[in-house]
Amino acid sequence: MSDLLRPPSTTLVEDAAQLLTSLRAEPPLTHCITNAVVTGFTANVLLAIGAAPAMVDIVGETEMFAGIASGVLLNLGTPTPEQRDACREAATGAAASGTPWVLDPVAIGALPVRTALAHELVAKRPTAIRGNASEVLALAGMTAGGRGVDATDTTDAASDAARSLAQRFGSIVAVSGPVDLITDGEEIIRISNGHELLTKVTGGGCALGAIMAAFLGVARGTDVSTLRTVASASLVYTVAAERAAAQSHGPGSFAVALLDALAALEPEDIAAAARIGRSER
Amino acid sequence: MSDLLRPPSTTLVEDAAQLLTSLRAEPPLTHCITNAVVTGFTANVLLAIGAAPAMVDIVGETEMFAGIASGVLLNLGTPTPEQRDACREAATGAAASGTPWVLDPVAIGALPVRTALAHELVAKRPTAIRGNASEVLALAGMTAGGRGVDATDTTDAASDAARSLAQRFGSIVAVSGPVDLITDGEEIIRISNGHELLTKVTGGGCALGAIMAAFLGVARGTDVSTLRTVASASLVYTVAAERAAAQSHGPGSFAVALLDALAALEPEDIAAAARIGRSER
Amino acid sequence: MSDLLRPPSTTLVEDAAQLLTSLRAEPPLTHCITNAVVTGFTANVLLAIGAAPAMVDIVGETEMFAGIASGVLLNLGTPTPEQRDACREAATGAAASGTPWVLDPVAIGALPVRTALAHELVAKRPTAIRGNASEVLALAGMTAGGRGVDATDTTDAASDAARSLAQRFGSIVAVSGPVDLITDGEEIIRISNGHELLTKVTGGGCALGAIMAAFLGVARGTDVSTLRTVASASLVYTVAAERAAAQSHGPGSFAVALLDALAALEPEDIAAAARIGRSER
Repeated sequence: MSDLLRPPSTTLVEDAAQLLTSLRAEPPLTHCITNAVVTGFTANVLLAIGAAPAMVDIVGETEMFAGIASGVLLNLGTPTPEQRDACREAATGAAASGTPWVLDPVAIGALPVRTALAHELVAKRPTAIRGNASEVLALAGMTAGGRGVDATDTTDAASDAARSLAQRFGSIVAVSGPVDLITDGEEIIRISNGHELLTKVTGGGCALGAIMAAFLGVARGTDVSTLRTVASASLVYTVAAERAAAQSHGPGSFAVALLDALAALEPEDIAAAARIGRSER
Repeated sequence: MSDLLRPPSTTLVEDAAQLLTSLRAEPPLTHCITNAVVTGFTANVLLAIGAAPAMVDIVGETEMFAGIASGVLLNLGTPTPEQRDACREAATGAAASGTPWVLDPVAIGALPVRTALAHELVAKRPTAIRGNASEVLALAGMTAGGRGVDATDTTDAASDAARSLAQRFGSIVAVSGPVDLITDGEEIIRISNGHELLTKVTGGGCALGAIMAAFLGVARGTDVSTLRTVASASLVYTVAAERAAAQSHGPGSFAVALLDALAALEPEDIAAAARIGRSER
Repeated sequence: MSDLLRPPSTTLVEDAAQLLTSLRAEPPLTHCITNAVVTGFTANVLLAIGAAPAMVDIVGETEMFAGIASGVLLNLGTPTPEQRDACREAATGAAASGTPWVLDPVAIGALPVRTALAHELVAKRPTAIRGNASEVLALAGMTAGGRGVDATDTTDAASDAARSLAQRFGSIVAVSGPVDLITDGEEIIRISNGHELLTKVTGGGCALGAIMAAFLGVARGTDVSTLRTVASASLVYTVAAERAAAQSHGPGSFAVALLDALAALEPEDIAAAARIGRSER
């Protein structure tokens, strides 16, 4: 690939800056079906970065709405029967209209209802999959998963599972952890930005899935690859998290500062902060 | 009307100050059926200003509870089947007991389930209707509505729709936007307070509907008109928002500061900040 | 009891410090079925103190999950049909595996659906019951309860009801108020820490129920009594609340500061702040 001739981190940084600029210029309508714990925080994260959230999770509304949205997030954190059917509808609507969508298989593995739903939805070939290492391993069938929403496995341990999922379903797979790993099944991008406080705020990971859906909406019609788009979302979010952590006195003030930092982040702020690695295979 | 002989803004300011004083002296039990995104924030806004929130949205409880509440909010942001029936029950209970109630038809227009429910509920003649311009236009049947929860129409564009709704259903109609417009179908009050950050916090508008329900509960048994009561809620809320914005560094700190400002606002603070216009027709 | 020869407050302080240290060393998986208003805040409180929250409330998942969790909270604030069945399942799973569990009968008394559910669940003998005075009186059948989530009765008025419930169901009963009262049916511990701002944040009491579930999980296999464990949770939480209040400008900044204070609280901070009273009968 020609861009390997340039310092690779430069190009991703440029992509991220371009997508953030475009997002602010034309806010992507970001359709979220997400869990009851983080709905408000997720909407606030999307508003803060400049996207237009729409938390529509009612059967009878999600198929058509996924068709008009710029991007869709299906997060399985508290999947009531109503939400399970709404997710199925939304996946159908997204597929029919070509809307990019993100699957976040929260806490699958030990918990049977959501695990079955995640396997059903992943077969519909999401544009991107975001989870922690335990969730990605469980989705790939390589482990029984964590004991809940905690990641009990490391990001690198999930690397093979992520590549396998990406190849099987044509999805970009993002494994969140101290180092975020994003792969299309061949290339692997590693982003070392972020802060441990993100794990001390509920929805710290779930909101990243929503940012990915927003960025995927923005990237439609640009020449930024889907891999780079998902990595850009991760980069922007974790750079903002670092800035927020520097202003915080604990998890409460961090969550507040994260929203402020997402709103204040300028495209030109990304380059100096980015810590990116990349490899083939 | 005799109060046209006095500077009209003075009177509304006095009404707002009186209602805020009464609210603090005897907190109105404010029964909210609202969407999953903003339930916590709405309850916190009500607690901050001094009201007593009760987020009761279970079938079998809402009819009787609307009967003992001081005021009721029905917000259609995430109307599950359970919430739809709970809304119907609550509207029945409110009508039977004379409890004032507010309808907030969130994101109607494009989304079919909530649009049908909003038309069903408005026919039960809510005391007040609060929405953005797109929602008010959609409820009046004058447009297909926005693309989601965004207002894509301006407040003034919704002026005729607001007056029409007010006359048809005997409701006070409040259109939220950079300028809030409140009408009883004849008189129009315009409030220019507020801050753009209110649109960057999820529930910034939804919480105002809850404040209106609380104020309507307080106004029962006083001589403050329903039009003035709804306008007072808007005035108090947007004056607090301005104070909060002056203390904020972005949408995260603004949401926190708004709660602090609502709690700290004193009746005598309103006059100096109020920016009110009024017209017949 | 031999520890009556020592200053009794010293011992509870030591227990609380030991449990907090253990919680940080091995975060208890705390399974919460709680109301839609406070789910996010409750999870953030658990994360802040150092526990591992899991907000699992789906039928088909809660029985097995209550079996693997360290502690369980069943909070009846917004009990949809799905949540009611999930609570029944979780109580069964907790009983089968010996997982300690906390019942929080939010706003029972006037509201019929949750009142019936609370009576059904209390018969399954929760490890602990937490409520305000009105809720504890209603659960004991001694009053019709409050008008909603407000406590309209004082803590001391609920003292006999708390002792009666404790004796009947073998539960520790905690009555939250300006003074928290915790009893096993014989001994009564009174904790005078805390701050009025806790009543101005939605979920201020609900989150304490979750902390109790976490502490009960930590106490398994130690020699700290269940009474002392529940009192320790109350003590730690209310001491953190006092520290937060000292940093706050109102209810918004208090909620943020409470999360920071819970994360920052060290076991050795408890002794100087504790205000504890104790009596037989």
